[in-house]
Amino acid sequence: MMQAAALAEIWRGDFLESEHLGHAVICGPDGNVIDGWGDPDRVILPRSSVKMIQALPLIESGAADAADLGVEHLALSCASHQGQAVHTDLVDAWLHNIGRGEDDLICGPQAPRISADRRAMIRAGENPCRVHNNCSGKHTGFLTLARHLGAGPDYVAADHPVQLAVREAFEDVTDQTSPGFGIDGCSAPNFAATLHGVGRAMAFFANAQDSSGRGRAARRLVEAMMTRPDLVAGQDRACTELMLAAPGRLAVKTGAEGVFVAILPDQGIGIALKAADGATRASECAIAALLVRLGVLPADHPAVQRRMNPPIKNWDGLEVGAIRPAPGLLA
Amino acid sequence: MMQAAALAEIWRGDFLESEHLGHAVICGPDGNVIDGWGDPDRVILPRSSVKMIQALPLIESGAADAADLGVEHLALSCASHQGQAVHTDLVDAWLHNIGRGEDDLICGPQAPRISADRRAMIRAGENPCRVHNNCSGKHTGFLTLARHLGAGPDYVAADHPVQLAVREAFEDVTDQTSPGFGIDGCSAPNFAATLHGVGRAMAFFANAQDSSGRGRAARRLVEAMMTRPDLVAGQDRACTELMLAAPGRLAVKTGAEGVFVAILPDQGIGIALKAADGATRASECAIAALLVRLGVLPADHPAVQRRMNPPIKNWDGLEVGAIRPAPGLLA
Repeated sequence: MMQAAALAEIWRGDFLESEHLGHAVICGPDGNVIDGWGDPDRVILPRSSVKMIQALPLIESGAADAADLGVEHLALSCASHQGQAVHTDLVDAWLHNIGRGEDDLICGPQAPRISADRRAMIRAGENPCRVHNNCSGKHTGFLTLARHLGAGPDYVAADHPVQLAVREAFEDVTDQTSPGFGIDGCSAPNFAATLHGVGRAMAFFANAQDSSGRGRAARRLVEAMMTRPDLVAGQDRACTELMLAAPGRLAVKTGAEGVFVAILPDQGIGIALKAADGATRASECAIAALLVRLGVLPADHPAVQRRMNPPIKNWDGLEVGAIRPAPGLLA
Repeated sequence: MMQAAALAEIWRGDFLESEHLGHAVICGPDGNVIDGWGDPDRVILPRSSVKMIQALPLIESGAADAADLGVEHLALSCASHQGQAVHTDLVDAWLHNIGRGEDDLICGPQAPRISADRRAMIRAGENPCRVHNNCSGKHTGFLTLARHLGAGPDYVAADHPVQLAVREAFEDVTDQTSPGFGIDGCSAPNFAATLHGVGRAMAFFANAQDSSGRGRAARRLVEAMMTRPDLVAGQDRACTELMLAAPGRLAVKTGAEGVFVAILPDQGIGIALKAADGATRASECAIAALLVRLGVLPADHPAVQRRMNPPIKNWDGLEVGAIRPAPGLLA
């Protein structure tokens, strides 16, 4: 097993206060690793970073078209949104259109991420519901597919037709037999793969062609993510801002516990990385650095700077430190 | 430089999802390392873990007795409290007693940590103030010392008599010349030392004798922390619960970016550890494991279990994983 490599540094004054290690792969059009840090064979739970894989059966099955889903629904099916009104209104309407409701969602409730939204909800005496869960778009996609297949309500069971279809697609695009799954934050199975497998899957999405049903589905999902970055995460979020900084040339997705992936259709390249300790501040810094390295984003773009070199401010708003990518990611 | 050692593991189902590395030392009565993991010579910013060192001049100068401070004030001077009413009421009264007010505190405002307290504040249309800052006890201690010394209001300036006294005490108990400082979350200087230096300082506190002014001050601070664990952190917090689990036999203190220290007066032992990536979930797990290893706390105590082996629950309340100490800490 290869050791983890340096991904990001936490500086306070002249002191390297903390350091994040991890693993990263850049995969070319054939899925092979063209550049790597740490261990490409590290088995990871990719968490929400692979929602575009989990959404493939929704399209391939014909369920998406039967339910007349638009790019906004496809973007939401790949999203870890933050429960803004733009997200919850669309999910509510989608649930209504397929004859389902909040109670059919198996994900738990989650408070909106934006402080002002949370405060407004507290002032109004309201509680967050399952539609606010960051995965509610993915789950509504699962419900749409389950209905189309005439399958039962427990769509997160590992042997449910929806999850069997997800697993088949996951193993196909990672080109691996998954060693199993963990239960995700939203209660759905999250299939494991090596980091290389996840990077290979992202290269598949980057190079997807209309010559196959799976390729067409992958192209539609990447297009949807790039068309509606605001739905994939939301205001001030890394995924949204990085995609907006390279319109039509980049799809990115974060995952819990320090995962980040990128799809570069222009270059036919896929990226997957995992901060070994699970830190999001490290995965965001590292993905920004790799996108700069590959020339997709300029280093001085504000959206890049906010992830690659964000200041650390204290309770009084003083700038007391900074996050920096490990030198090895940029060199 | 020695490599970081495994401190804590994050499991989800059968998968080791993330892993925290770091450094830890157990120092005996003479300050030497009697057991260690990772690199004892790693220079760290100990952050809030050394507030009991920063409080030494408050007592040694005579300022504490001149201001008639009790154990509650001494405990608060060592605290990272969470802005509960019990903390803010005492700090408010203390400020009043020394003829100072919130505006004299240089730390920034910070919201209370307990969700119900924050929600109540939002409903009441109130904003957190500087007294809510977790460091407001330390700062009120600095103000008390500054007043006693007849020194100016900018008590966080590195050349202010208060900080010169803190630095002298810090270098004495760590037995090192500090290589410098970073600016802490509360805007005070935070002096750097090696992990061994911080562990040696904790051994000094564990073995402090009344034969010197510094020793007497150290004993009073340890006694204050052990007498009022509720003031050192607060409800549900690791520091408070671990001290309550070993009454009179243990003083512990967390610091930002994955630092934790422990003072074991019975055994004359000091502990210092730093999660290399700065994760609190790792530092809490590791300190609990080391306290079990040393026999101070039973492994099956609920307060220990909540830090050493806490379940990971998802948005729906399902137990989907667990945190576990690295096997090397217990073996």
